Amino acid sequence: MSRQTPRVSVEGRKFSSEVFALTYGALVAQLLKDYENDDDVNKQLDKMGYSMGVRMIEDFLARNNIGRCHDFRDTADIIAKNGFKTFLGITPNVTNWSTDGKEFSLILDNNPLTEFVELPENHSSLSFSNILCGALRGALEMVQMEVEVWFVQDSLKGDDTTEIRLKFIKKLEDALPDGED
Amino acid sequence: MSRQTPRVSVEGRKFSSEVFALTYGALVAQLLKDYENDDDVNKQLDKMGYSMGVRMIEDFLARNNIGRCHDFRDTADIIAKNGFKTFLGITPNVTNWSTDGKEFSLILDNNPLTEFVELPENHSSLSFSNILCGALRGALEMVQMEVEVWFVQDSLKGDDTTEIRLKFIKKLEDALPDGED
Repeated sequence: MSRQTPRVSVEGRKFSSEVFALTYGALVAQLLKDYENDDDVNKQLDKMGYSMGVRMIEDFLARNNIGRCHDFRDTADIIAKNGFKTFLGITPNVTNWSTDGKEFSLILDNNPLTEFVELPENHSSLSFSNILCGALRGALEMVQMEVEVWFVQDSLKGDDTTEIRLKFIKKLEDALPDGED
Repeated sequence: MSRQTPRVSVEGRKFSSEVFALTYGALVAQLLKDYENDDDVNKQLDKMGYSMGVRMIEDFLARNNIGRCHDFRDTADIIAKNGFKTFLGITPNVTNWSTDGKEFSLILDNNPLTEFVELPENHSSLSFSNILCGALRGALEMVQMEVEVWFVQDSLKGDDTTEIRLKFIKKLEDALPDGED
């Protein structure tokens, strides 16, 4: 059988948000079966997100003409306006900066991961969308930034909004491969 | 904090195919950790797909103005041109009909689930994208059709193409809720 010409390019392909949300929901449900407590599920989601972030940043830099960030404010803008937009089709608001400029929040008015989701009972410590924290951590580590990322609010848990907090820890000079600067 | 207006409607949202493929890949990798053999992973993926299909068909019928199918050929066309298109952004070819019109194949020139994926070694029996079979089975059961669905070829395994086979088993008259016809 001969191969046929692809009809839709990868770039132009549209996904149903439902397929993505249901697939992610199946992943979380599977982890809830596998691990004893919510904290372990959160850690596992963060770890999976980290691996994804490490992979996605390459593609992201290849597809977007983005120069080196001058400061963490630059980084915040690119994460919100380019990163989230490219991968999840949303643009979070960047806000709640700390006075030293080392911490900010991303406010997600709608979270594609939690559409069609109701948090199962008895999982009040579950950080359902924790994969996002891992993805941000992994992606930023690839551009020599060590950060901490965590959920401050989650509308899935009844909070007013969904707020992800990013804290700059340090620049990772040593992470550069030999021969680059 | 007041809620802000969503920037992007669910309908118009674009996902990166990479996020979806990596999330699905994480799900399969987790199942490979959890289950003893590939057959059990295949069954679990089919089961997850079934649940997703049961949910997705509702949304699909609500969003698409589709009448009752006259025969299995109608069904095949709607699956390919509407179902796959809506949820995965691809339009498989419908082909290889059996002479009795009860079996056909969907040929996927590119499979969004397997982008960025290399099949791990020692998993030759794994049907990586088996969630699609379950989803088709679940969705069709909700419109009173019992079908069998399985992969005949998978380009991830080095086959020439990716071919999903659907076989009509019977009409499920009893599945109709009371008060409908």
